[in-house]
Amino acid sequence: MSLDAFICPICRRPYPADVRSLFCRACGDPLLSAFVPKSPAIRRGRPMGVARYLGFLPLPEFDPDLSLGEGGTPLFPLNRLRSAFRTPPLWVKNEAVNPTGSFKDRGSIVAIHMAKALGFETVGTISTGNMAGSTAAYAAKAGLRTVVFVKDDTPLEKILSAGMHGANVIRVRGNYARLFVKSFEIGRVLSFYFINSVDPYRIEGYKVTSFEIYEQMGGKAPDYLFVPVSSGGHLIGLLRGFLDLKRAGRIRRLPRIVGVQARGCAPIARTFARGRAAIVPVRKPQTIAHAIANPQPPAGRVVLKLLAAHGGAMEAVGETEILRAQRLLAEDEGLLSDPASATVLAAFLRMSKEGRIPADAASVLVLTGSGLKTLGDVDQSRLRIAEADLSDLPQLMAAWK
Amino acid sequence: MSLDAFICPICRRPYPADVRSLFCRACGDPLLSAFVPKSPAIRRGRPMGVARYLGFLPLPEFDPDLSLGEGGTPLFPLNRLRSAFRTPPLWVKNEAVNPTGSFKDRGSIVAIHMAKALGFETVGTISTGNMAGSTAAYAAKAGLRTVVFVKDDTPLEKILSAGMHGANVIRVRGNYARLFVKSFEIGRVLSFYFINSVDPYRIEGYKVTSFEIYEQMGGKAPDYLFVPVSSGGHLIGLLRGFLDLKRAGRIRRLPRIVGVQARGCAPIARTFARGRAAIVPVRKPQTIAHAIANPQPPAGRVVLKLLAAHGGAMEAVGETEILRAQRLLAEDEGLLSDPASATVLAAFLRMSKEGRIPADAASVLVLTGSGLKTLGDVDQSRLRIAEADLSDLPQLMAAWK
Repeated sequence: MSLDAFICPICRRPYPADVRSLFCRACGDPLLSAFVPKSPAIRRGRPMGVARYLGFLPLPEFDPDLSLGEGGTPLFPLNRLRSAFRTPPLWVKNEAVNPTGSFKDRGSIVAIHMAKALGFETVGTISTGNMAGSTAAYAAKAGLRTVVFVKDDTPLEKILSAGMHGANVIRVRGNYARLFVKSFEIGRVLSFYFINSVDPYRIEGYKVTSFEIYEQMGGKAPDYLFVPVSSGGHLIGLLRGFLDLKRAGRIRRLPRIVGVQARGCAPIARTFARGRAAIVPVRKPQTIAHAIANPQPPAGRVVLKLLAAHGGAMEAVGETEILRAQRLLAEDEGLLSDPASATVLAAFLRMSKEGRIPADAASVLVLTGSGLKTLGDVDQSRLRIAEADLSDLPQLMAAWK
Repeated sequence: MSLDAFICPICRRPYPADVRSLFCRACGDPLLSAFVPKSPAIRRGRPMGVARYLGFLPLPEFDPDLSLGEGGTPLFPLNRLRSAFRTPPLWVKNEAVNPTGSFKDRGSIVAIHMAKALGFETVGTISTGNMAGSTAAYAAKAGLRTVVFVKDDTPLEKILSAGMHGANVIRVRGNYARLFVKSFEIGRVLSFYFINSVDPYRIEGYKVTSFEIYEQMGGKAPDYLFVPVSSGGHLIGLLRGFLDLKRAGRIRRLPRIVGVQARGCAPIARTFARGRAAIVPVRKPQTIAHAIANPQPPAGRVVLKLLAAHGGAMEAVGETEILRAQRLLAEDEGLLSDPASATVLAAFLRMSKEGRIPADAASVLVLTGSGLKTLGDVDQSRLRIAEADLSDLPQLMAAWK
């Protein structure tokens, strides 16, 4: 199998495609796939997901035996919020209904294809949540072993789903940034494929979401695309998808991509706001949006470079805004999202209120993860829960009406 | 709007379509819709879900503003389990990836359409889990108020998602069977629509799953269809879907439907095994499969009658079988299901081992709910979770390899 090379998106230096060596030796930034779709066709007979957009991906074929039915997630308008807040038109793309409950499955299906094609027997990841569950599920389906490294203080509930898929979960005492580096060393020595959050094949998988949005919007790109940002891999993948569509002549303009972080851990948004290039790590993340509380995002510099090149932006939102947005999604639109996903509605509402989005611009919010995974973080003080005797119910209800 | 009548499936007595009066006054059994599709067409331009099969449903139109993108769930083969256990061919239909994480959304979308069409402002339900979350989510999307009655000892975690959608949740002290009856009295007086588990419109919604299976199997019905059984509503809906397809001349034979219960709460399976007609309530349900632990299933007699008329069967499986099946789904097929869903694999494996399924028969297992909702019930003793110092990792991994 001949592989497309990797490339450093900062210095453009090419590298051989070796999934055990994924960072530029000069810059330290994560490598991306140098793959460029030749004459990509949308295979209209196939359902949405990898199979339909195979020509856009660096995969020789799609193996249905590796699939859990990822992709084809719904896109629909949020008309109640639009009307309540008099906003420009907006839609959600709900990635929370992927097989393991997050957008990570888009990347896992592609990376696991590569793991199989390259003959790996073991894959690994460092994660405390969505990525562990997703990687472990797809490895299980593929008959591969999984090892998951987590911080030693990771609560059990966060690693249960990976554990259920048979992953070997190891709580590691020691410095987290060093663990990230160490995992690749281990991978090189033992021939494990560590599929991290900015893995080049994982990022290629995220492109599929953009292709689906393009088709679901009726063969158009939205004007604005809001996405929560943690490591940066998801945003890069979405942007690359629209770049592919532009290169193929299907769209004329890219959407303006708005990456959103929580103010309590906003290393990329902070650097963007200051017009700098180098990410300063956050010492102590403080946000309820745990899924994006990445204090030292490995693709931070790449995100900033791509946003500058293609007219995107970063926003940071506060905890009150996040909780309010999560409640609005649940109460007005029936969407139970995790706090990380709610950041995009918070950013949209603020930008809309400040008149920073034209009245006729179409915005798509990418919801990345299911609120079922974060019920433990719910603010219970706002819930309407009461107690009553059966015999008192009729009067209680009559008064309530 | 002219409504199709209701009918008692036991005595065939017709009733006016009134969602506040849903049980036969003579038999006590739940009424079904008397709707029969006239000349149903599959609208091939539409994605899977209600819109594609509108002609098969008692709805005048599909309102996309009420939809959360339910349906179109994946169907795929379980080739690793098939080969490990040398079983006849089997597939799953994964209903856990519906918007609120369970099959209930199929019924909620149809019932909420009716609630809107009939002018209700408040809907209600009695539930401790999946149904509360689903009904509350769809009511929120539709701008309706929701009231959820639960038993007074219901743990908070089970009602959080309904609460997040703004539902008024009331823990009711008193007899549960009486609460069920009382809720309809309240509904009649106050004009609330109580969308219970055997609501006739909810059941119509479950037909859509059968239409999708038919198309996803390449325009065929499977030979066997396994479904977990609680109230009985889901099984009835699935069977009605295949009856519609047969009536429309699309299939010649119905699948043999196998309803599955946990032995610790198997009122319908026990009655079926004894060849009786009347359901004896279970005094004290004892099973980890909480989502189907219904001690007095309201549609039990209807299920038995339909299975007898159309050649279906009931099976009961034990706790050890359920836990093993849940583990096999997660470890071999990447599917994190709740214990209730795992019952169908347990029943399939046993019937297959006993030679009760022909070698060339195609079986579809319907997984009804997400394992993300039941992580609290996981048997942690089998998980592979270890601790290590960062410096010890390389040796640990080398030894493990």
